[in-house]
Amino acid sequence: MQAVKIGLIGLGTVGSGTLEILQRNSREIAGRAGREISVKRIAVKDISKPRSVDTTGIEISEDPMSVVDDPEIDIVVELIGGDGVARDVVLRAIENGKHVVTANKALIALHGNEIFQLAQTKGLMVAFEAAVAGGIPIIKALREGLSANRIEWLAGIINGTCNYILTRMEQDGLDFNEVLQDAQSLGYAEADPTFDIEGIDAAHKLTILASIAFGIPLQFNEVYIEGITGITIDDIRYARELGFRIKHLGIARRKDKGIELRVHPAMVPMDRLIANVNGVMNAALVQADAVGPTLYYGAGAGAEPTGSAVVADIIDVVRALTTDPDNHVPHLAFQPGALAQLPIIPMGDIETAYYLRMKVINRPGVLAAITRIFGDCGISIETILQKGHEAGNGEVSIIILTQQALESQVMGAIKSVEALDTVTSKITAIRLENLA
Amino acid sequence: MQAVKIGLIGLGTVGSGTLEILQRNSREIAGRAGREISVKRIAVKDISKPRSVDTTGIEISEDPMSVVDDPEIDIVVELIGGDGVARDVVLRAIENGKHVVTANKALIALHGNEIFQLAQTKGLMVAFEAAVAGGIPIIKALREGLSANRIEWLAGIINGTCNYILTRMEQDGLDFNEVLQDAQSLGYAEADPTFDIEGIDAAHKLTILASIAFGIPLQFNEVYIEGITGITIDDIRYARELGFRIKHLGIARRKDKGIELRVHPAMVPMDRLIANVNGVMNAALVQADAVGPTLYYGAGAGAEPTGSAVVADIIDVVRALTTDPDNHVPHLAFQPGALAQLPIIPMGDIETAYYLRMKVINRPGVLAAITRIFGDCGISIETILQKGHEAGNGEVSIIILTQQALESQVMGAIKSVEALDTVTSKITAIRLENLA
Repeated sequence: MQAVKIGLIGLGTVGSGTLEILQRNSREIAGRAGREISVKRIAVKDISKPRSVDTTGIEISEDPMSVVDDPEIDIVVELIGGDGVARDVVLRAIENGKHVVTANKALIALHGNEIFQLAQTKGLMVAFEAAVAGGIPIIKALREGLSANRIEWLAGIINGTCNYILTRMEQDGLDFNEVLQDAQSLGYAEADPTFDIEGIDAAHKLTILASIAFGIPLQFNEVYIEGITGITIDDIRYARELGFRIKHLGIARRKDKGIELRVHPAMVPMDRLIANVNGVMNAALVQADAVGPTLYYGAGAGAEPTGSAVVADIIDVVRALTTDPDNHVPHLAFQPGALAQLPIIPMGDIETAYYLRMKVINRPGVLAAITRIFGDCGISIETILQKGHEAGNGEVSIIILTQQALESQVMGAIKSVEALDTVTSKITAIRLENLA
Repeated sequence: MQAVKIGLIGLGTVGSGTLEILQRNSREIAGRAGREISVKRIAVKDISKPRSVDTTGIEISEDPMSVVDDPEIDIVVELIGGDGVARDVVLRAIENGKHVVTANKALIALHGNEIFQLAQTKGLMVAFEAAVAGGIPIIKALREGLSANRIEWLAGIINGTCNYILTRMEQDGLDFNEVLQDAQSLGYAEADPTFDIEGIDAAHKLTILASIAFGIPLQFNEVYIEGITGITIDDIRYARELGFRIKHLGIARRKDKGIELRVHPAMVPMDRLIANVNGVMNAALVQADAVGPTLYYGAGAGAEPTGSAVVADIIDVVRALTTDPDNHVPHLAFQPGALAQLPIIPMGDIETAYYLRMKVINRPGVLAAITRIFGDCGISIETILQKGHEAGNGEVSIIILTQQALESQVMGAIKSVEALDTVTSKITAIRLENLA
């Protein structure tokens, strides 16, 4: 069969990894795909920049549209990131009748509905395995491997920077800021780490995972987002003492009332497999009605892990080039007509247990006042620990584990407790997720 | 689109689970597949047997060929197991131009080469995700998700019975036979557990995994097979003390000289994720050149977990019904012409570290004699522990961890050590697998 011609847009980390894999494993790839896959054109930002990958025989320009408009190119691979130029490039590629492979989570989370609709009318494929959890084939697992199931919930460690920081804080007893600086110098965190540590990147990915799990439209704006900047080394230690580990999770859960969509730090029982996913590694735990729990683990970022997913998508698209469009794997797992309009549950209506940490003045009656507030709000307390008495400054830390309670009630109780004269700090609240 | 018509052969555990899922999740399944999937015929062993699943409107008979020969049936689903009738049924289905889905690991491991060749000439698909690790989409992950990669090695906990027994032995301090009886009464082990505890079932699955990982023909007869019947509670305790857990693994590894294919108990460092896969759960760890390590975890058996994989395969086949055969995902991951004839490395040429346990008479010079033999055989010792002195019967247990050594040399050393007058037991040898 004739070689399939690829146009690559972007030759940064992921672009270079993708090209490197296509070249190094060309024999294995052709042996699997049944034909050669050749890169015809590449668009880069700065053509004068020296490259670590071999681009001999490939036409390179600084104009992405020269790739998108080349009639010989079958598949456009978008690896520039962001939702500006990338959106224009992808929409024009589809207009031009080309299939698209992208690693761009922001683009899919924010503009996926529009992109998939256009691709649908044109009978084209847009593949985006690399947009979530790097090299882990989690999109394929959800969309195809578990296609017999009604998905009940999923929980993912889907941001490697957050997981690296929390792991190092626990293992080395370091403060958030110390580890962040280390992560930046090691290249595990960006110079501006906001997207990662504030949970926005994880929310992009959760948006995509939830869509394909439940067959709902992409709706990034409905995701509750909390990052890890409020987590202290004390929280990590107390969690450990109580048998938990703190992980930054993206959680999507189907309830009778609708879908929960939330990204936040969570305390997970230490003996859960996902609680033992450390460093920059990612994992997704999926609970489905027929298969039960399954877990997928691997590298969530990096040139070649992400390139691995991009190339797998290219091979998938190549295999489906002759398939009639009605039989393509639907972009969001369900046929467009079968998408559900389930409401996203407001955060106040979420029910979980909570870890709460606060500083109080160590004198009689303090605990009674606090516990009375919880009781009045209808919240049962599971455990109370008192810590830091040895500091001798008259202040102690109180740690409370609640039983399952409504988020709005817990937030109400927190407000009332924080208003007490004897409570001298803001309350740190971390949700407990049993994941069973 | 028109409904796809299925013929089900076998309505035991997996058959019932498959039918139950097809009925319960019919809306989700049609929403994903883009059309209805309806079961037209079922063949059972005993038609008079009462069934827990609803078979209203389905033609049932005791003749599997009545299903295979029905011209209206598009896909034959073989769920009777074994490699006798199942082989006839599958070959005749293919002769009749039908696609096949099967959960039958023995059939694929022993007769897959023949079956796939016939299917290839007819342009038909034979799907077998359920044959390995039940509901975990590991075939899909290897064949499609990691298609960009050169696979380096894989290690799997692929027999739930063995993992259940080893887990209970460790967690409850019970003997092998006690746990086996428990497992039998709970339905986690067969009345005749030989296939599971002697490693034959795991070897069937490893045969399949190795084929699709490396693109080599199925060759069950080349697998080295060792079960778990020789593992004692002492071994488990000593392993733990040394920081390891004993797991029954299927290992396939690409080396310069060829492929290692082996099923045996192994000591795995306790902090590896796969060492924390407990009970009946399965997991496969795959090391690949681009993506690095990925791990897949879930239920390896049971009606609905296995049915989940069967139904996912049906949906995959439905989606590819209109694809031209050259573009089907190749049965063994690589196009038939791209299969490699790599030699399987003889077990004597394998190199790993070893845990060795033996009983010796506790008197001066014993250890010197033993260590001299290892030295003479060119085997370096990492650790020696002496245990059981408190029994006071003049016997002690010696535990030796070797460094990496050639299997043939270690077996030679074992023979010489066992010949010593002062060594009063056979030597238990468990291979150490670092899996990093």
